[in-house]
Amino acid sequence: MTTTTRQATRRMSLLDTAFVNVETRDTPMHIGGLQIFSLPPNAPPDFVKNIVRRFRNTAKVGRPFNMKLEKTLWARIAPSMIVVDDDRIDLSYHVRHSALPDPGGERELGELVSHLHSQLLDRSRPLWTCHVIEGLQNNRFAIYSKMHHALADGISAMRLSARALSTEPDGEWFPAWEHREPTHKRKRTHDQARTVAAKLTAREWPQIMKQAFQPMFKREPGSESVLRPFEAPPSILNGEVTCARRVATQQLDMERMKRVAKAAGGSLNDVFLAVCSSALRRHLQSQNALPDRSLIAGVPVSLREAGDDSMSNAIGFLWAALGTELSDPKERFAAIRASMEVSKNHLKSLPQQARIAFTLLTSMPTALVLMSGLGAKVRPPMNLTISNVPGPEHILYLNGAKLEATFPISIPVQGQALNITCVSYAGQLNVGFTGSRDSLPGLQKMAVYAGEALTELETVFGVIPA
Amino acid sequence: MTTTTRQATRRMSLLDTAFVNVETRDTPMHIGGLQIFSLPPNAPPDFVKNIVRRFRNTAKVGRPFNMKLEKTLWARIAPSMIVVDDDRIDLSYHVRHSALPDPGGERELGELVSHLHSQLLDRSRPLWTCHVIEGLQNNRFAIYSKMHHALADGISAMRLSARALSTEPDGEWFPAWEHREPTHKRKRTHDQARTVAAKLTAREWPQIMKQAFQPMFKREPGSESVLRPFEAPPSILNGEVTCARRVATQQLDMERMKRVAKAAGGSLNDVFLAVCSSALRRHLQSQNALPDRSLIAGVPVSLREAGDDSMSNAIGFLWAALGTELSDPKERFAAIRASMEVSKNHLKSLPQQARIAFTLLTSMPTALVLMSGLGAKVRPPMNLTISNVPGPEHILYLNGAKLEATFPISIPVQGQALNITCVSYAGQLNVGFTGSRDSLPGLQKMAVYAGEALTELETVFGVIPA
Repeated sequence: MTTTTRQATRRMSLLDTAFVNVETRDTPMHIGGLQIFSLPPNAPPDFVKNIVRRFRNTAKVGRPFNMKLEKTLWARIAPSMIVVDDDRIDLSYHVRHSALPDPGGERELGELVSHLHSQLLDRSRPLWTCHVIEGLQNNRFAIYSKMHHALADGISAMRLSARALSTEPDGEWFPAWEHREPTHKRKRTHDQARTVAAKLTAREWPQIMKQAFQPMFKREPGSESVLRPFEAPPSILNGEVTCARRVATQQLDMERMKRVAKAAGGSLNDVFLAVCSSALRRHLQSQNALPDRSLIAGVPVSLREAGDDSMSNAIGFLWAALGTELSDPKERFAAIRASMEVSKNHLKSLPQQARIAFTLLTSMPTALVLMSGLGAKVRPPMNLTISNVPGPEHILYLNGAKLEATFPISIPVQGQALNITCVSYAGQLNVGFTGSRDSLPGLQKMAVYAGEALTELETVFGVIPA
Repeated sequence: MTTTTRQATRRMSLLDTAFVNVETRDTPMHIGGLQIFSLPPNAPPDFVKNIVRRFRNTAKVGRPFNMKLEKTLWARIAPSMIVVDDDRIDLSYHVRHSALPDPGGERELGELVSHLHSQLLDRSRPLWTCHVIEGLQNNRFAIYSKMHHALADGISAMRLSARALSTEPDGEWFPAWEHREPTHKRKRTHDQARTVAAKLTAREWPQIMKQAFQPMFKREPGSESVLRPFEAPPSILNGEVTCARRVATQQLDMERMKRVAKAAGGSLNDVFLAVCSSALRRHLQSQNALPDRSLIAGVPVSLREAGDDSMSNAIGFLWAALGTELSDPKERFAAIRASMEVSKNHLKSLPQQARIAFTLLTSMPTALVLMSGLGAKVRPPMNLTISNVPGPEHILYLNGAKLEATFPISIPVQGQALNITCVSYAGQLNVGFTGSRDSLPGLQKMAVYAGEALTELETVFGVIPA
């Protein structure tokens, strides 16, 4: 473990450093993904095992899958990454072959993935693992992967895993961590905020922060309805977070959502927020814990104009009132839409650099931790984060196995026990609910409520007959 | 989580406190056990699931399974335990239902158990988990359990799990954590060292330590051959320990071992050490890493007279030369026997209280950490620990399923990447090898070598024809 040369060291950005430093036993800082595949027709009995074998037989591991934390005394203060030589990467450790107990349903899968997502990554190795899971009902198998947030954000991780699959059943596939020569230069627009952040020095941050936050705390005439941090009501979503996680999933049809958006006069994202709002309201009601005032969600959003339905990259971060105090679904939708509109206009009024800094500082779990100060002990800056990540548009395959769904699994932090993130994939919105186990005993039900909420919206907005 | 009353708080002993305080991400301080069961004839398909169900339906949880660490600022310095009310114990978290991927052999079981043993326990809950594992070849299933060393030592944990099984196929069984009214007072002799330790105050330790260690560091005439701490040669067993574990197992027939002991003129424990020595020698040779001088094992031993073959409770702790530098098995056996004899006599010469303190300070992983100072960075006080734990003498059953084997899984610490522990059960010695993954890539082979070493000893001592 000592043969790595100095040249291979990479200084980490302030942001990535923070992801390492704020990690505790109770709040691991890795992001996860759950992919569900259907076995191809006439798949041999060792189909899954052969995938595991191929995954472990990777000749050359590419970045960031070959990066680990440097382990020096100095690195405890200022973490840096080093590249691990291929012959030191123990792929039989990183790639696991797991199985579900009988009957191998969504329940058993949810339990396994919840436990896998609860476990800290080994800091003496590259910071990722991949678990190929056999025994899933109806001729399916699953792959759960996780990676430290210091190596990649959700969008990058999604792209890394999607590019390893093929768009044809018999097309080429490879392990996501296998080194590939780049075929062409990608446009780097997708990750503007992170790119800017990586370049900022410690000296530049205070000025940027001042620019970004000062307008938020000056109450100007006419801006009464702009939500600001720490206006969120206390709730059971904002208690202590311990290390056990609970993961639940739901798939929503994007065509159905678009029809609702059109009928209701809002964006696809407004519909998604309304679905989440309804699910949250029902869940909190069932626990006798619904606050009188609206729950506030932190929402990374696109700043494109209304009418643009694409689930594109978030380049702004807003506080949105979810209208959870309202029992009428139409009123709730109107409240969400109005709140988002006001917040977007506010954000647009900021100078561009301040907007990016603002987005950065408020959209990342690290920032949430820092903002919440003592975590569960102070008033929550918001009740939860609801994000969407653009995913692959076309059906993908792994050795002929069709990717049926791909769910993001994210990071709860102290004082923010729930995260809802969705990924678009081939006409479906794949929603991942990630919660701290003790705060969210009914998380599976909340996912079910989300599915029912879409039907309710279709009904009240006349998309389907009541 | 805040309803627990003050009365339920229990001050921890200095020793148990140490187990909590020395724990790091790389060196979890939990002990484990792996039980292998054969399914009873005509077991229904949901036999294992019904066990999981019964395990989760425990009306009242008994000590120490209802104890968790108190989470106050003061408790970070001086940890204490609190009793968790039954309605706060989430048994569906503590009891897990797992499965092995096809073909469900010892290899797949070993991989799963290795990963489970690598993971830290959740400090916000009672410090144990139990994993019921289905899908083991040849109509078997397994149970892997783990518990923090601050709650119980190996002997106590073994007794807790054995008492929950029945001695008849149709006898009563219950979850090990279920509260039972004590039927009769047990004699407390089995845990003398720990009991004494629990009573010692911080003020008494320095005097006891002086009594115990001063004689060790005075070289007296005629005591040249007594091994002392830090005489062990550097070896690959004494490098850095990281959090991933590797677990391997072996069963040795105790009748065969007794015949060798008789023919060779030693104890059963001498034979066990000779088996370990041979396995270690072959493993290190295969890695071109066999030290010129003998490996030194820390061995908790009974101080009973020679000829007494019982694997009874360790009440002394010795440094034993394993003779790994010798190629002849007979010479190796003689070296081990001689070294053990000298060490036993030396230990017997200490005053009783000093002997107990000495045992305590040297036999526990905590002590190893403290003694080794900077862990992997200093000369090892010994190369590894080899212990035996007395287990059940008669066949045990769980709902009619026969317990085929029960393996102890122990704790490597910084600078001590390997632990070998055995448990006697119904005429077999069940040996668990627990290693740090990176230090011991060939651990499974070492377990195989141990089996072959017994045959070699039978041959050289004429128990079976060459």
